[in-house]
Amino acid sequence: MQMPTFEPPRLGEPYLLTPGPLTTSYEVKEAMLRDWGSWDGDFRAMTAELRARLVAMLGEGSDAFTCVPMQGSGSFSVEAMLGTLVPKHGKALVLANGAYGQRAADSLRYAVRAVEVLDKGDYLPPRGPEIAAILAADPAITHVVAIHCETSSGILNPIPEIAQAVEAAGRALLIDSMSAFGAIPLPPTQIRYQAIVSSANKCIEGVPGFGFVLVRTDALEAAKGNAHSLALDLYAQWATMEKTGQWRYTPPTHAVAAFLTALHAHEAEGGVPARGARYAANRDTLVAGMRGLGFETLLEDRWLSPIITTFFCPADPAFAFQPFYDGMKARGFIIYPGKLTEVDSFRLGHIGRMDSAVMARVVQAVAETLADMGVTDATPPAAALEERNKQAEAA
Amino acid sequence: MQMPTFEPPRLGEPYLLTPGPLTTSYEVKEAMLRDWGSWDGDFRAMTAELRARLVAMLGEGSDAFTCVPMQGSGSFSVEAMLGTLVPKHGKALVLANGAYGQRAADSLRYAVRAVEVLDKGDYLPPRGPEIAAILAADPAITHVVAIHCETSSGILNPIPEIAQAVEAAGRALLIDSMSAFGAIPLPPTQIRYQAIVSSANKCIEGVPGFGFVLVRTDALEAAKGNAHSLALDLYAQWATMEKTGQWRYTPPTHAVAAFLTALHAHEAEGGVPARGARYAANRDTLVAGMRGLGFETLLEDRWLSPIITTFFCPADPAFAFQPFYDGMKARGFIIYPGKLTEVDSFRLGHIGRMDSAVMARVVQAVAETLADMGVTDATPPAAALEERNKQAEAA
Ligand SMILES: Cc1ncc(COP(=O)(O)O)c(C=O)c1O
Ligand SMILES: Cc1ncc(COP(=O)(O)O)c(C=O)c1O
Repeated sequence: MQMPTFEPPRLGEPYLLTPGPLTTSYEVKEAMLRDWGSWDGDFRAMTAELRARLVAMLGEGSDAFTCVPMQGSGSFSVEAMLGTLVPKHGKALVLANGAYGQRAADSLRYAVRAVEVLDKGDYLPPRGPEIAAILAADPAITHVVAIHCETSSGILNPIPEIAQAVEAAGRALLIDSMSAFGAIPLPPTQIRYQAIVSSANKCIEGVPGFGFVLVRTDALEAAKGNAHSLALDLYAQWATMEKTGQWRYTPPTHAVAAFLTALHAHEAEGGVPARGARYAANRDTLVAGMRGLGFETLLEDRWLSPIITTFFCPADPAFAFQPFYDGMKARGFIIYPGKLTEVDSFRLGHIGRMDSAVMARVVQAVAETLADMGVTDATPPAAALEERNKQAEAA
Repeated sequence: MQMPTFEPPRLGEPYLLTPGPLTTSYEVKEAMLRDWGSWDGDFRAMTAELRARLVAMLGEGSDAFTCVPMQGSGSFSVEAMLGTLVPKHGKALVLANGAYGQRAADSLRYAVRAVEVLDKGDYLPPRGPEIAAILAADPAITHVVAIHCETSSGILNPIPEIAQAVEAAGRALLIDSMSAFGAIPLPPTQIRYQAIVSSANKCIEGVPGFGFVLVRTDALEAAKGNAHSLALDLYAQWATMEKTGQWRYTPPTHAVAAFLTALHAHEAEGGVPARGARYAANRDTLVAGMRGLGFETLLEDRWLSPIITTFFCPADPAFAFQPFYDGMKARGFIIYPGKLTEVDSFRLGHIGRMDSAVMARVVQAVAETLADMGVTDATPPAAALEERNKQAEAA
């Protein structure tokens, strides 16, 4: 298949190597050039199409699911999913290896749900056997919360293995697939889960403004009265949509219109497999190029996601994050700081409206920026590598 | 002053006579044609400007306030304000005369706060003496929640009188000024309140995607740990913004950019007084024209807001809402159904990017639509008028 080539940002803004907001097509943004009445039939039809397309994206087995879009950023949808599906007297086990796992646990604590956290530190994957052991030891746990791609390190957590352990123990699995949905399949016929959550501005390549939960209809029906928040009551949002075709409160009409354009482009590109293949190719070009410059990735290849990659900062004392950021921005690329607690790092996202050719230019821009800064060696500190290798063995 | 004249919707979509989403200028929408990184300095500067401009809009006395924008629709900001500012052991008195007052009370119930509702029915205003009496009788009440313009009927509630009763009783006032802020002043030197809330897609004429709370900084500082929801924790959102200049979670970047353009246009028009004067002129043209056709307003003139007006449906059996809606849409106007529980009504909003000349065309379109439908008499049912007049005496 020929690699698609996209026009660069038409207004000349930098590419966003950030995992949402990300670089969207001009057509997606152009869809926002008119106003819609949220009560009107035209907009209700847009909402219906959006919901149907997202459910269909799950593939075989999708008829058991319904789609509930929710205003706000992705975290609002995560909290809506957790607060609505985990009942007041339920208990959740959160599998955490980064900021988003920790945030899910925080949401549950605010909602006054019992929570246990399996904390794997900055980037170790939770594994099937340890999950099975915890569930066997604690029959009070009703739900397990997993992060699909933990965007804070870029690790792609082993969802099939996690889902198997959860299903075997007869518990319900809730997946934060914020940064992966639309690029990495989660076929319900092979992976058992109760709900997954994502948002408009990730792998579907829309603009930020809302998230959505894909949830088994029977589980949602049983969740009436659970929610800890009126605005974040996923059940009530769904009941209103089913009854009236409208969002319960004012929808982000322009972001919805942009998203529909993005959904059409997603389909035209070839759906989830094609989107995932482009992002994986982006990563491969980027990682190979960066390694060629002497950089090292935080993770071994088998845990790298097609979404975002964490690189260690060079040990070279001439390196500092801010001038590196500024140099990359001057060359047309917005990068992302690291989110690790222990070592200095930065992240480069490879999702959004860009292809391998753009990734090659990113590597070129990194090389130029390092040269400008007088950084001659991109090798990370020995201590960072040692720590990484010790951890890799543990995983 | 010369009436501004605006270009009609450039893509030919209907005017939205709905109180948000509403008709915005093309320039506002054009501001969404690029992507921003939410971590980047350029976007942080946009957030800072937005916050500063909104605080300044309060006028004299504004330095005691801070602005906290919040993702989601306006209801999310209302719930964030209530759940954060009313402490777990506080008690709120909600002054309700329509759907938005009832919704505020619901938010508080979800958040497990003690609530008392003064329910004035569909459209009677809460008055100072009755509020004073309730507060005197119940020292447990810590907060009073008032709706500025109750958009479900269009009534402009008597905030100065309410604020006086609340201040005299030493309680805190929280105002849902969703549909009024930016067009009707609430000078803090004359009206004492702890916080007010509004959203992007009302009188500032931005697109939907976020709301904002203007709150006394000392009250917010004292509210740490109160919130019932992580995503809707107004204190935490503020603390992050103060520390980093960023939104806590992904902001609706494009809606923020559109809003800044809208804020500049608001200032250029002459700020709150000019915006309010244009809307009041819109209303006057509309109401005079509709009365000329035989329609009657739900409210007496002294309670009419410059935001939206409720008209009774004609008694003529040839009238029905859906064909009326369709006829108006075909003529370029999206109207709004009524939200009264007792009588049939519809609403026409008069906020958004339009002036009196457009309102005259609305009246013309109504006349044509009625003629098409074979409605010869726009007079409401006698019973509706009797009820209204009885209520008016009570108020
Ligand atoms: C895995 C994951 N969960 C949750 C979120 C939170 O989403 P938002 O920033 O839109 O609230 C993100 C954002 O990047 C994410 O990657
Ligand atoms: C007075 C008032 N409060 C609250 C809301 C709720 O705002 P949203 O629909 O954006 O959630 C509205 C919306 O029109 C309103 O007019």
